[in-house]
Amino acid sequence: MKESWSSLDTLETNFRPLVVIELAKGTKEETIEWFTKRIVDKKANGGAQLLIKPLVTENGDENIYLVGASHLRLLLGAETVGLVKECNDNSMRAFTYSSRKTFKDFADDNQNFLTMSECQYIIKHELENLRAKDEKMIPGYPQAKLYPGKSIVRRLLTNGILVQIFPLHDREELKKLRHTWYGQVKIGYQPLDEIRCYFGETIALYFGFLEYFTFALIPMAVIGIPYYVFAWEDYDKYVMFATFNLLWSTVILEVWKRICAVMTYRWGTLLMKRQFEEPRPGFHGVLGINPVTGREEPVYSSIKRQLRIYLVSVPFVCLCLYFSLYVMMIYFNLEQWALDYHEENKSNFSSLMLYVPSIIYAVVIEIMNRIYRYAAEFLTSWENHRLESSYQNHLILKVLVFNFLNCFASLFYIAFVLFDMKLLRQSLATLLITSQILNQFAESLLPYWLQKRHMKKMKKRMHSLKMDTDLSLVEQVNSEKEMGTYFGTFDDYLELFLQFGYVSLFSCVYPLAAVFAVLNNITEIYSDALKMCRVYKRPFAEPTANIGVWQLAFETMSVISVVTNCILIGMSPQVNALFPDSKMDLILTVALVEHLLLAIKFVMAFVIPDKPRDIQIKLAKLEFESLEALKKQMFMESYSCLCDDMKEQ
Amino acid sequence: MKESWSSLDTLETNFRPLVVIELAKGTKEETIEWFTKRIVDKKANGGAQLLIKPLVTENGDENIYLVGASHLRLLLGAETVGLVKECNDNSMRAFTYSSRKTFKDFADDNQNFLTMSECQYIIKHELENLRAKDEKMIPGYPQAKLYPGKSIVRRLLTNGILVQIFPLHDREELKKLRHTWYGQVKIGYQPLDEIRCYFGETIALYFGFLEYFTFALIPMAVIGIPYYVFAWEDYDKYVMFATFNLLWSTVILEVWKRICAVMTYRWGTLLMKRQFEEPRPGFHGVLGINPVTGREEPVYSSIKRQLRIYLVSVPFVCLCLYFSLYVMMIYFNLEQWALDYHEENKSNFSSLMLYVPSIIYAVVIEIMNRIYRYAAEFLTSWENHRLESSYQNHLILKVLVFNFLNCFASLFYIAFVLFDMKLLRQSLATLLITSQILNQFAESLLPYWLQKRHMKKMKKRMHSLKMDTDLSLVEQVNSEKEMGTYFGTFDDYLELFLQFGYVSLFSCVYPLAAVFAVLNNITEIYSDALKMCRVYKRPFAEPTANIGVWQLAFETMSVISVVTNCILIGMSPQVNALFPDSKMDLILTVALVEHLLLAIKFVMAFVIPDKPRDIQIKLAKLEFESLEALKKQMFMESYSCLCDDMKEQ
Repeated sequence: MKESWSSLDTLETNFRPLVVIELAKGTKEETIEWFTKRIVDKKANGGAQLLIKPLVTENGDENIYLVGASHLRLLLGAETVGLVKECNDNSMRAFTYSSRKTFKDFADDNQNFLTMSECQYIIKHELENLRAKDEKMIPGYPQAKLYPGKSIVRRLLTNGILVQIFPLHDREELKKLRHTWYGQVKIGYQPLDEIRCYFGETIALYFGFLEYFTFALIPMAVIGIPYYVFAWEDYDKYVMFATFNLLWSTVILEVWKRICAVMTYRWGTLLMKRQFEEPRPGFHGVLGINPVTGREEPVYSSIKRQLRIYLVSVPFVCLCLYFSLYVMMIYFNLEQWALDYHEENKSNFSSLMLYVPSIIYAVVIEIMNRIYRYAAEFLTSWENHRLESSYQNHLILKVLVFNFLNCFASLFYIAFVLFDMKLLRQSLATLLITSQILNQFAESLLPYWLQKRHMKKMKKRMHSLKMDTDLSLVEQVNSEKEMGTYFGTFDDYLELFLQFGYVSLFSCVYPLAAVFAVLNNITEIYSDALKMCRVYKRPFAEPTANIGVWQLAFETMSVISVVTNCILIGMSPQVNALFPDSKMDLILTVALVEHLLLAIKFVMAFVIPDKPRDIQIKLAKLEFESLEALKKQMFMESYSCLCDDMKEQ
Repeated sequence: MKESWSSLDTLETNFRPLVVIELAKGTKEETIEWFTKRIVDKKANGGAQLLIKPLVTENGDENIYLVGASHLRLLLGAETVGLVKECNDNSMRAFTYSSRKTFKDFADDNQNFLTMSECQYIIKHELENLRAKDEKMIPGYPQAKLYPGKSIVRRLLTNGILVQIFPLHDREELKKLRHTWYGQVKIGYQPLDEIRCYFGETIALYFGFLEYFTFALIPMAVIGIPYYVFAWEDYDKYVMFATFNLLWSTVILEVWKRICAVMTYRWGTLLMKRQFEEPRPGFHGVLGINPVTGREEPVYSSIKRQLRIYLVSVPFVCLCLYFSLYVMMIYFNLEQWALDYHEENKSNFSSLMLYVPSIIYAVVIEIMNRIYRYAAEFLTSWENHRLESSYQNHLILKVLVFNFLNCFASLFYIAFVLFDMKLLRQSLATLLITSQILNQFAESLLPYWLQKRHMKKMKKRMHSLKMDTDLSLVEQVNSEKEMGTYFGTFDDYLELFLQFGYVSLFSCVYPLAAVFAVLNNITEIYSDALKMCRVYKRPFAEPTANIGVWQLAFETMSVISVVTNCILIGMSPQVNALFPDSKMDLILTVALVEHLLLAIKFVMAFVIPDKPRDIQIKLAKLEFESLEALKKQMFMESYSCLCDDMKEQ
């Protein structure tokens, strides 16, 4: 039996580098030896049974290793991570090695059954699950403690011995993808399936959402244009626009869930079983027994964490919110000053000066958002959450609250304290457009330019200016390891979220917002695509079945926008003219309409099923099959057990 | 191998009757023979492998059969239905025959490992899953068509050949239960675990909720009493009371989820896997292929059902709602007439007459609710839903909407159209108290009295007046089969739901409502207990993990009550006096407070975890174990598969 597992390696003829491991310069020999031995060691000995080769560079002082795996090893790994693939009968099923023949496109010699990003995900999973056995520390580094079951890679990362692990680009594939994605000048859908194959589900889902959201905004934009062109200020037209917007935003969010289900079903992630979540790399604590797994691992008291959250984080966030409001008041003083200046001078320069405070404020908001982001990350990681998901949720909550207030507080103030609709429209336009320009610049163009400059410098150093595809493996690894790291879709979603706020919160005052949003998103698709393909290292694929907490965030925003739009309409002079005698009737009517709209929203969200009918049937079919299989298995077990009992008697 | 399964029966020495089957008088011999043969037939032949004996009565013209099962058969059945039991290490696990030794209190000769109600549930499950093989019809009844896979019992029931199936009472156990439940005059908790053992989880959970809800109302009642005693009419006290009520109702509904989780974890139902849902007995259609199971079964077009719902049911419900409003207007005319009469005559009689319209209206409401209930049941079953759960949801929705409007429309009209707080208080009190008295009477006391009278008559006919426990089996079966059938907890929850409405919707106007609710619920516990133990046939146990759609209904009610209470407070003269100059400020303040309260409610519902931490850990532990087991199993499978491959090569 032992032979069959060890023969895994001998079967393999060619080594295909998939993942790069960069160790710190000057890492001790014994550490490297131990680490590589653990990686190639047999599964039965607690190894990862992967293949590893050092990258031989010219100067040779860098510790860079390439990791690959045999085809068979990858197939077994696909089973371990629970990949879901399409079968010959077009149904989606979890891949298992024993049932491999039933899967579409499977052949023992077909190396493309698993996509490259799936292979890299499997290798990452196997590396992260390489656990200490009886080592008390990392050989050569007594301060880097280990205990049985601790992930070795995570310890190496937190101790700085392991600099980074990243998957290699596939230059050929990337070129093809770039061409279909943004290479041609044509209007069309993005190649989401190809994006998913290359970058994984999380990123493909972001681009899918971005595209869907852009299409969903088009009706709003189309309806919004005549308001600007003809300068419609009629009450009934605004009410119609706002009502349409509110119901539309509910519909698009509900329909997205259905589209998302269709997509992730096709990709297999809708059916993927949730894996047991291990502690996140940065989590620390005293060694104890985990009550769930019964394993020895660091334990950190939940009360201490609560104390940190409520006594430090919450006050800090409140302070930041206060500071943000303070900056807002400074902005209003500036605005007033500019207005006064314009009144006094009445020149072209002074009328241009009118826009300056808004632009400065928009820039300051962006800067504050970015600084706060670092503080929030520091605080959340200091809170020492055990799970990555819990860390993410706390971080997202912190960032969302601050960004929301920071971006919209001034607009709320203008709308509901100053009652200045003209200023509101102007501020909204300035904030929206400035933040869009800043974002596009800071997110993609700046890094792209830096990257290009760096590449040029490097190539010059190599004394050769070859084409990208002609680079040797060594050059490819060297250039990719210097690229920036893509830290996930958080910032991209946040940008969309704030944009959704600009579009929906005050939609009845500034119908043109949707037009700008659509225009921005079209360029955003291209700049984000550029960013993914050319600026950053290839990220590891991350299987996911939905956009997670962002769905909730967008839905919350759409509920808030019902309230703000109703108030805005109630405040408009046209509506006020309809109730000349009694302000009370007006307010009561507005409140009634608001409650009605909210009720309709909730009923609509309840009535529209989250998954299309055919996906529901497919899921029910799978569940039915697994229940039947379980029943059969249980019957067989009891049967044999019963027979044994009978024999004994 | 065959011998071991057939030896199931020979092992058994004593036959314990558990379930009674009553066939229609004059059922053909061949049908009876075929049906009993199917019941006792071996599993391998598609039978249920149960035991069945005819009940020999004096006149012998009745087709009554007693069904039992061997101990071993019941254990295997427990595995099939997925019962969850406590293990020796105090964890809860799904029972399997092969792991039976690890369960607490298990011994091969311990017949009490499964409770009687569990045994009866298993037998019911096995009977319902007795399916046609190649029979085209029920022998002797060519019009009763069968097709492979159709449940025989359900076909017999819909064709009227099978009159009823019901579980037998256990006179001894029932006597004990009655004693601990309501036999002693003492204040204390109900014996929920014993109730669960005897009646099953659904009913125990209802009584648990009733008890919890009563306790939860006590703080409201205690705070409400001084308002009545001292005739407090201060604005600030009312606001305090209402605010307390609103937040309290959120807290109690959230805490109930936690308590429910603790209870159902202990009972094992929290962990029970959802079984695949078969079509409900009344479902009909043309034979087709079910896309989920691939089996032949009746199929009914979803579009037809939608048409029936939207073209018939919805208009009918609207018509009923309109009728209910029409009746309400008649009530207000009557009320006005009574007032005029009192003004003219000013006698004791006329002041008594003031209450008459309210009482008549309360009675009419109860009658309308009950008539509508039948109409809703008829309509929903005509809509031809495939699943029992879908049928129940549509029925509950129909009934809830109508009952809500019927019970509360007049109060809304008085509060928000007539602005008559005195009349509101009076109507609320009359409606609440009258409906409570009517319910108690119609639900328990009347059936109890009828039942007693019937029993006496029957006993007289038997020329003997023995004690209950001395009855022979024949007498017991004969008396129980005449008892009414308990149709589930629907009406009981509905009553509580409406009561919750009376207490919370207008709580700031009539703080005494909670006092009446508490008093009513205390007697309700006793009258419901009486109803369960003495009036109705024993119901089959129904495993459940929560109170289902009622949780949502109660939460919706508590959201609506935020709105109504805020408006009521805003309308009170004391609050109006605070804003002498501007009605607008008042309304804006009220709207702001309302939105704040709603926001707090949603945040609280989000922040309070649905399950206590220790239950969460236990569930996580089980999930972890099953994931580990799955991993191990998959590893073993791939391993052996791999070895086979190696040998081939």
